[in-house]
Amino acid sequence: MWIAFQGEPGAYSEAAAGRVAPDARTVPRKSFDEVFAAVAEERVSRGVVPMENSIAGSIHRNYDLLLEHDLHIVGEVELPVDHCLLARPGVAAGDLKVVYSHPQALAQCEQYLRRLHGAEIVAVYDTAGSAKMVAESDRADAGAIASRRAGELFGLEVLDEAIQDYASNVTRFAVIGRGPAAEGDATKTSLVFSVKNTPGALFKALSCFSLRDINLTKLESRPIRGRAWEYMFYLDVDAPRHALPCARAITHLGEVAQWVRVLGSYRAWGAAEAPAGAPPGPGSGA
Amino acid sequence: MWIAFQGEPGAYSEAAAGRVAPDARTVPRKSFDEVFAAVAEERVSRGVVPMENSIAGSIHRNYDLLLEHDLHIVGEVELPVDHCLLARPGVAAGDLKVVYSHPQALAQCEQYLRRLHGAEIVAVYDTAGSAKMVAESDRADAGAIASRRAGELFGLEVLDEAIQDYASNVTRFAVIGRGPAAEGDATKTSLVFSVKNTPGALFKALSCFSLRDINLTKLESRPIRGRAWEYMFYLDVDAPRHALPCARAITHLGEVAQWVRVLGSYRAWGAAEAPAGAPPGPGSGA
Repeated sequence: MWIAFQGEPGAYSEAAAGRVAPDARTVPRKSFDEVFAAVAEERVSRGVVPMENSIAGSIHRNYDLLLEHDLHIVGEVELPVDHCLLARPGVAAGDLKVVYSHPQALAQCEQYLRRLHGAEIVAVYDTAGSAKMVAESDRADAGAIASRRAGELFGLEVLDEAIQDYASNVTRFAVIGRGPAAEGDATKTSLVFSVKNTPGALFKALSCFSLRDINLTKLESRPIRGRAWEYMFYLDVDAPRHALPCARAITHLGEVAQWVRVLGSYRAWGAAEAPAGAPPGPGSGA
Repeated sequence: MWIAFQGEPGAYSEAAAGRVAPDARTVPRKSFDEVFAAVAEERVSRGVVPMENSIAGSIHRNYDLLLEHDLHIVGEVELPVDHCLLARPGVAAGDLKVVYSHPQALAQCEQYLRRLHGAEIVAVYDTAGSAKMVAESDRADAGAIASRRAGELFGLEVLDEAIQDYASNVTRFAVIGRGPAAEGDATKTSLVFSVKNTPGALFKALSCFSLRDINLTKLESRPIRGRAWEYMFYLDVDAPRHALPCARAITHLGEVAQWVRVLGSYRAWGAAEAPAGAPPGPGSGA
């Protein structure tokens, strides 16, 4: 199975892709758009993209891309994110004059970075890419924040480990495919909907699920692009789409909402749960 | 009145600060943290910070800072955000080899930037700061995305205007102060709360407002930092905190939620509505 991910080899997304299937071959892509395109154009069978981080919140771009494409969420992977401070061999943390990483990683290590006096903090588009940049740079005083594996791939040393401000830092990745997941496997359903901006409209929408005792696990309002302060809502529920109470709730939601889109009904793999027999290959994050 | 904002002179936040009071003197600060500290330590009477953008969503850092400080939202300003492509005089868009801006501004101009073939896109911490960087750089092939006013302040030319992907791009700023706003002025209340992760818990929390016909204008789940997938909720309601139905709803919410924090009850100024007699001073965004 070929699985596309965004970033350079060593990216957290590649580690997540490695958990999806034991025989997965991971295919790097420059942007989230290109991951979706690779799946849509049948160049890979799956894509893996981050949807939410336990510290930083939702990755809106990937919700947008799900709405723009006729693709489905077919699975979910949770991955603990342990950031490392990386530099070229022989460089000490006190020598660093510049530290590169993705803005989300920088935000997650904010308190740690404040203690690195005098180092300029520069945002780049990819954590593993920041490691590559340091490895290829002429500067000996440059550091990167990325995974331990990115450091290994690009010949950097780990100066410090688990430097994020909060120990429990988990990212939830969606596995995307062209068709829906097998019905029997699903435990969870993700939807996007909008309601009119009238009193009680959102409450009625949620009642479709709550009055059927279906648990809401995520609910988030998101401004609709280009229409100021009109919102759509991301909703995750703890029920498979085709089981009766949930199927009825979704039909009911269709009566109440302006529009509804089911992003997918799928199985959630826990952070610690790898598929049986997964080898510690390049994509497994081992 | 002294009002702190994050960024360099010419930042969108400075323009928002200028709308708060006709006699406002704007005080630049490097980070959101320093804006909150300036208010808390009584070095300024107000701070202005962005809370939500109509395209990019909530600015979580400022919600976190509101929860960390004993400060209040005392007002709200909406500001249209029109991004410009800026460069040193005589430079054409086709000459640009690098374009700097804040990651949010880059994200908002994504489609435009793709048409600038061959220019490297570099994220920096501040839109107005990116304009300053271009003005002070030795490179003639560098551009910035920032406000027209930032371009004027740093002697750059506007190569292109309103380059964001969606014409309607509005940012909502909170005005923060040490005490609550005057009761008579408030039209709106912002709260943060958490509920147990049990079926129906969120629905019960929202029913406190919906069953009293109080309109919810924003609702967003946010992972609680350091506790994976435990959520708190940001809620805005169209009612003043001390008016009876809302006061009762908040008391009721206290029975249902694990904790509730009222961030403030305040008046919302519309995007087009400047305070009477506001001069076109340095902080007015004119």
